[in-house]
Amino acid sequence: MVCPGEKIYDCKRQLLAIQDTLDILGGKWKVTILGCLAMGEKRFMDLQRELAGIGPKMLSRELHELEVNSLIQKNEEGKYMMTEYSASLKPVIEVLAAWGAQHRVKVMSMQ
Amino acid sequence: MVCPGEKIYDCKRQLLAIQDTLDILGGKWKVTILGCLAMGEKRFMDLQRELAGIGPKMLSRELHELEVNSLIQKNEEGKYMMTEYSASLKPVIEVLAAWGAQHRVKVMSMQ
Repeated sequence: MVCPGEKIYDCKRQLLAIQDTLDILGGKWKVTILGCLAMGEKRFMDLQRELAGIGPKMLSRELHELEVNSLIQKNEEGKYMMTEYSASLKPVIEVLAAWGAQHRVKVMSMQ
Repeated sequence: MVCPGEKIYDCKRQLLAIQDTLDILGGKWKVTILGCLAMGEKRFMDLQRELAGIGPKMLSRELHELEVNSLIQKNEEGKYMMTEYSASLKPVIEVLAAWGAQHRVKVMSMQ
């Protein structure tokens, strides 16, 4: 994100886009929910059992936000599943995982 | 993040790495602070003026967390600046910006 020289407008637009993505994926549960659903469609109760510590209110709110952003959907049997559109997240997930993994190694080496 | 077939352990490790990155960059201010510093080194007061709405306590906490994660540092004049290591964020920032921008177009087209 080298902003010098770029018009400030472009920088603000880029920051907004970054913040959008972080807000959509951020928080304690969304990535873990996507991780669970990447393993196959699941009912609400299945998710609640697998996500130790999440309450029903929080789970329904997180599922609703993921649904509103077209990343998951509910099928006719009432099971949650990833949407086709969620495949667009693949490069995001991969780069977040890669950076997080190398950062953990760096932080451990500093201790 | 296709987990089926991968050992559950690898999936959990991948989710942890993703969550690490989201936690380090997440929240309302960190990306904007990095965006400001990408334009050049700045004093605390400069940052506080540029980041409309951030209080001194929040700014110092966010700066501390970015410093602890080696993404920014303070130089001898007491100015904050990006570290060499922060360049490792470039692919992350680019993919977050790209996904966020295309997602905004998709969401607008659904309205």
